[in-house]
Amino acid sequence: MSHFPDLAAIDALDRADPLRRMRDRFAMPEGVIYLDGNSLGPASHAVFHELEQAARHEWGHDLIRSWNTAGWFEMPLELGDRIGRLVGAGPSQTVVADTTSVNIFKALHAAMGLRAGRNVIVAEGGSFPTDLYMAEGVASTRPGTELRLEGVDAEAIEDLIDERVGVVLVNHVDYKSGRLRDMAALTQKIHAAGALAVWDLCHSAGALPVDLDGAKADFAVGCTYKYLNGGPGAPAFIYVATRHQAAAQNPLSGWWGHARPFAFEQHYAGHVGIRRFQCGTQPILSMRALKAALVTWDEVDMAALRAKSVALTGLFIELVETRCAGFGLALESPRDDAERGSQVSFAHENAYEVMQALIARGVIGDFRAPSTMRFGFAPLYLGYRDVWNAVEIMQDVFSAGAWQDPRFAVKAAVT
Amino acid sequence: MSHFPDLAAIDALDRADPLRRMRDRFAMPEGVIYLDGNSLGPASHAVFHELEQAARHEWGHDLIRSWNTAGWFEMPLELGDRIGRLVGAGPSQTVVADTTSVNIFKALHAAMGLRAGRNVIVAEGGSFPTDLYMAEGVASTRPGTELRLEGVDAEAIEDLIDERVGVVLVNHVDYKSGRLRDMAALTQKIHAAGALAVWDLCHSAGALPVDLDGAKADFAVGCTYKYLNGGPGAPAFIYVATRHQAAAQNPLSGWWGHARPFAFEQHYAGHVGIRRFQCGTQPILSMRALKAALVTWDEVDMAALRAKSVALTGLFIELVETRCAGFGLALESPRDDAERGSQVSFAHENAYEVMQALIARGVIGDFRAPSTMRFGFAPLYLGYRDVWNAVEIMQDVFSAGAWQDPRFAVKAAVT
Repeated sequence: MSHFPDLAAIDALDRADPLRRMRDRFAMPEGVIYLDGNSLGPASHAVFHELEQAARHEWGHDLIRSWNTAGWFEMPLELGDRIGRLVGAGPSQTVVADTTSVNIFKALHAAMGLRAGRNVIVAEGGSFPTDLYMAEGVASTRPGTELRLEGVDAEAIEDLIDERVGVVLVNHVDYKSGRLRDMAALTQKIHAAGALAVWDLCHSAGALPVDLDGAKADFAVGCTYKYLNGGPGAPAFIYVATRHQAAAQNPLSGWWGHARPFAFEQHYAGHVGIRRFQCGTQPILSMRALKAALVTWDEVDMAALRAKSVALTGLFIELVETRCAGFGLALESPRDDAERGSQVSFAHENAYEVMQALIARGVIGDFRAPSTMRFGFAPLYLGYRDVWNAVEIMQDVFSAGAWQDPRFAVKAAVT
Repeated sequence: MSHFPDLAAIDALDRADPLRRMRDRFAMPEGVIYLDGNSLGPASHAVFHELEQAARHEWGHDLIRSWNTAGWFEMPLELGDRIGRLVGAGPSQTVVADTTSVNIFKALHAAMGLRAGRNVIVAEGGSFPTDLYMAEGVASTRPGTELRLEGVDAEAIEDLIDERVGVVLVNHVDYKSGRLRDMAALTQKIHAAGALAVWDLCHSAGALPVDLDGAKADFAVGCTYKYLNGGPGAPAFIYVATRHQAAAQNPLSGWWGHARPFAFEQHYAGHVGIRRFQCGTQPILSMRALKAALVTWDEVDMAALRAKSVALTGLFIELVETRCAGFGLALESPRDDAERGSQVSFAHENAYEVMQALIARGVIGDFRAPSTMRFGFAPLYLGYRDVWNAVEIMQDVFSAGAWQDPRFAVKAAVT
């Protein structure tokens, strides 16, 4: 936007928004501007119906038969392919299973197994911590494995990749700053060094178009409870490129990954395909909420989503920097649209208190220590007027000094 | 029972049953005698309310705040302690997390880590297969580890335990025959050889009293969707005895097991306690169904449960062997009450077809290749009259030859 927008211009943007009709699909409490869908996406109305169907009819009435008649057993594959469309994965490369953390373990182990003779895992020091913790767990079960961290062992991740590196675990969008990596370019550099790329899509799946196949990614993992709106703790997903499926080994070799799970054989023989990356029985009720959310996603054009996302985050940055100038805010996210995911972070000396004051006024974002206020913009249920109103409230919180109210002070234990 | 019971005696047993009132808690379709609760327990009516509350109000309305305000984050510990009461575990030794398969991986790795210098894992060749598959997965990440299997390397598990054995993974109740192990006696033998015991409680938790602390078990795992009625694929549990919690390492070192999960530290530091055996974010909706089920369990006296379970399975054996004599059935479960879990298996040459014919008449058990019909008896929602009626239908299926109907024939792929 080249000029400072007024309310008439904002409303015109909402009227012209091709995704505007999606908003009615979601349950959203009165008086809330929800800028935390990058942490927990909201419920769609369809979810309530789907859960009722799964609980009362399939479980309550059809009981054990539903494993077959309601498609429970195949659901991880079905939902995996639905997610695949959103992340640029052709069919039969993505499966919904377990948690992001557990899937990181599977992917790193499998990737290191494909690069025998190499003993280094590269990751980002600023990564969401569970990625690093799981990499440490993998190293603990592969004697001699070393971790190298961006921001600790070198400034740029590219400088850490050499002939000893087996795998690079990298976030597509940084959870804190919202910085977006160029997946194709970095994957190419990783491959040029003979290593494999494991992409963490937690903050990009459902936030923007992802092209795993096009970028020649090797493995990917991601969660479904953020932008995908799958529900609290909804099962995660793992992607394994077709070319690796025959050779990649899953150390969590449970019966759901067996070639013949119902033959009850004494020894493990992994399915030749993405099923091998399953492990044990999956939480069907949580999976059904995810299914309802993904059915809504089936209708979404990812290019339109990205265009709106960029417009929303760009508008937010422009409005905050104009209307909240002089209040000590500093942009922590990339200003360049091409380098930004669907979230915006601002640093402030009293970020915790300011965020508490915003939440009290219905603008829900979140705080990340020591000084970050994080705002997520999910184009399916947010409009331009929401951005305008959120900034108006923020301006008010600052100019009235509302955040200095003692009830917003930092607590001893911040959870 | 010393005499052949008649219907008046059966009904007297139901009238005198102290657990009889529990039956109304459960949703059960008309015309069904459900003898498969050892595979998937039924829904309680409370579950539907709990799911609605969790989905519409906590997720739909309170959104991200519910992680704290609705106790989502602490639920794995809360539910773990509830299960603990049912399996003889004092507080803070049990946590609900992930799947049984994943928890077997954690427990075997942790146990082998506590027995450095030993390189053998002992398991049962007749175990539910995922136990064996996960043991193979653990061995694949611990070079030099060997597996020894009961029924393959020796007839009795006791004969496999020597000074090279680090851990013995053993099922409390065999999934197929229903054979019940003496946990205290076997654990003592395992300890005498310097090894550790990992008990799989999938077929005993909620089926009979378990005394993990009393038996000095080291680790245990179990599922919650069978006798505990937690719902399809409900999250599993893991028990780690207090004396091992400081030293035992979880290779799946995700952020939920960190000492300070919200401090977002760069390196893993496991919580000193049962929390360490968590990994990633748990499926809250599925966990809420489990919570509703466990609240019902809070009222159950385990001694009364066991007394009724023994009476139900004993009655079933007696009635089948009397009324279906001459039809080629052979008992596969222990005849001695003290050696039997809460299930009964019969072998039959046409077990698959007979089970299909029973299911068509509303008697739902299950088939296990090559020739086992398996019947589970859950005392919370089954009565003596159900046992009587089920056997009457079985007798009818045999004497009328109903199982020979072509529609009950074995399909090419049995799932």
